Amino acid sequence: MHFEILKTQGKARAGILHTPHGPIPTPVFAPVGTQATVKAVLPRDLREIGASLVLANTYHLHLRPGDALIRDLGGLHQFMAWPGPILTDSGGFQVFSLTQINKIDEDGVTFRSHIDGSTHRLTPEASIRIQENLGADIIMCFDQCPIPKDRTVVEPAVRRTMDWAARCRETHPDDSQQALFGIVQGGIFEDQRARSADFLRTLDFPGYAIGGLAVGESKSEMYATLDFTVPMLPADKPRYLMGVGEPDDLIQAVMRGVDIFDCVIPTRIARHGSALTRNGRINMRNREYTSADIPLDEGCTCYTCQHFTRAYLRHLVRARELLAYTLLSIHNIHFLVQHMQAMRDAILAGSDLAVYRDTFLQQYMG
Amino acid sequence: MHFEILKTQGKARAGILHTPHGPIPTPVFAPVGTQATVKAVLPRDLREIGASLVLANTYHLHLRPGDALIRDLGGLHQFMAWPGPILTDSGGFQVFSLTQINKIDEDGVTFRSHIDGSTHRLTPEASIRIQENLGADIIMCFDQCPIPKDRTVVEPAVRRTMDWAARCRETHPDDSQQALFGIVQGGIFEDQRARSADFLRTLDFPGYAIGGLAVGESKSEMYATLDFTVPMLPADKPRYLMGVGEPDDLIQAVMRGVDIFDCVIPTRIARHGSALTRNGRINMRNREYTSADIPLDEGCTCYTCQHFTRAYLRHLVRARELLAYTLLSIHNIHFLVQHMQAMRDAILAGSDLAVYRDTFLQQYMG
Repeated sequence: MHFEILKTQGKARAGILHTPHGPIPTPVFAPVGTQATVKAVLPRDLREIGASLVLANTYHLHLRPGDALIRDLGGLHQFMAWPGPILTDSGGFQVFSLTQINKIDEDGVTFRSHIDGSTHRLTPEASIRIQENLGADIIMCFDQCPIPKDRTVVEPAVRRTMDWAARCRETHPDDSQQALFGIVQGGIFEDQRARSADFLRTLDFPGYAIGGLAVGESKSEMYATLDFTVPMLPADKPRYLMGVGEPDDLIQAVMRGVDIFDCVIPTRIARHGSALTRNGRINMRNREYTSADIPLDEGCTCYTCQHFTRAYLRHLVRARELLAYTLLSIHNIHFLVQHMQAMRDAILAGSDLAVYRDTFLQQYMG
Repeated sequence: MHFEILKTQGKARAGILHTPHGPIPTPVFAPVGTQATVKAVLPRDLREIGASLVLANTYHLHLRPGDALIRDLGGLHQFMAWPGPILTDSGGFQVFSLTQINKIDEDGVTFRSHIDGSTHRLTPEASIRIQENLGADIIMCFDQCPIPKDRTVVEPAVRRTMDWAARCRETHPDDSQQALFGIVQGGIFEDQRARSADFLRTLDFPGYAIGGLAVGESKSEMYATLDFTVPMLPADKPRYLMGVGEPDDLIQAVMRGVDIFDCVIPTRIARHGSALTRNGRINMRNREYTSADIPLDEGCTCYTCQHFTRAYLRHLVRARELLAYTLLSIHNIHFLVQHMQAMRDAILAGSDLAVYRDTFLQQYMG
């Protein structure tokens, strides 16, 4: 994997992340395909939308259908028929957020499956082995993601994440085609982020993620944390802000130097009947769209907006038709992909990102 | 509307039904888009599959979102972004099958909506007005579909359906772009089918449907009923067998002279995790597909079979992923469209349909 920075503007960068499954233009937003499918969207439509990177979840795929099965079927790309780049997370987040019973020790985490209650164990070595079976282009170190504002839980989580990162680095072959990223933890505390980042830098990862944000802290706390954390990371390596995808957060983080994002927002809110538009988020159940003979977003070039009215989408949502989730997901992912593309274009063209940010936020936040 | 018969073989015909929204090659299978969407399938994919005609339900669209709204938004074609031919049923079937409370009289039917319990009334005139608002290329007479094997209910239903057909014919303008089809009722009774067909012929419809089959009688009773009913219909007009779509029934009915079919089977069984294959129907929950590295149907050219294994589809079905319903629906509709295409090709090429039937059934029924 090779990261090429084409141009910068302040802290923001426009680049290309070259992977075994093709280039990823950055900054980039990755839709989430939790169970080896971006919910309700065909791979062909993802391509047409302009998505270049898709995320899949190690925790889910390990439990069902099993990572060894996916390996035997040719790996995740072939299994889900997504020929482009894939990133897998480590499972560290889900073993705590999705399971009701879990127990952490120095070696790893024992937990009960949210599907059938069966007992499983993840360790740094196991997470890497699973991710090697899945075969994603970018894989992540097994980490512990603590509540970001409680120093007494953040400190031991940082220490454990450092220890586990070293074990992940050690167990993953140096000559692998899969690029292993380190994850900086530390909550909202500058000294903890520095401690985490300084250690990870000594391990020389091909990319660095910022974990443990957008999990309970305020937006201003998140931005402040980015302000001091991003400069702790190597300038020539890609930077990935995990789990962040609100349109306003994306522009704020790009301007603070982040290159890669993922989030379930576009597909999750689609299943709740909501759409992202330049004028903010709208819910299609709203009565005012009953006879609205206009697309979700005027001027949008996605398949949904090119063919369907708000009135039709409202009808589908009210009738609980599956097509509603497909059409809203297509639009919402397209919206975020276009948003990233606009930022990239601005950086490459040398036009002021702050102007784009102010115009976008004024319209989006109302 | 103009029906062109290109070639016949025994009772079977290959033709083209010319409509305001394009030609329909016959014999044809129409997927069902109950609520102005073929469940889980984009119109673009329906086109790619080769579907030429789509059915929508008057009962459902009248109740939600309302036929006047659809008219105001440019009609059903524009509303659901399906540029090809559409057929709407009359609502007659659903007011009895879907409502718990309904009351029939000589003038029409009063019923409670299955959605919210509100009271509505359908009459022949109301059904035609609704279907005119929807704007389908082919519309149907309001009829009463009785239990097919009880003469005491079939006889009054035939009389009422005759009376209502005359009122539908009277109320629908002669110069309309929408072709109004009559519906022959009469259960499994030859004298009742003759009575119904003889009367409808005097009204000179541009097409004739056979209703009241595949609603409880045996397959041999259905085929016997087709044997005597089809010859009662004008040879130069299209013949439509309502609600039939099992692969074996399709070939049996085509060989008895039927041109048009519709059925929810391909999309309904998709939502239950099942697929149509040349070797019969299979359920993807079956353990034997756990690691099956083959498509649903070897040699199938649909998007699903070109990209995904049975193992992947089984995973999606077990994980209740929405993409499962889309991918299985695409394959199942494609399967029936190809089945009809094969019959049409055989008729046009002059190759023996009976050979196709025997080969197909032997493989499909096992």
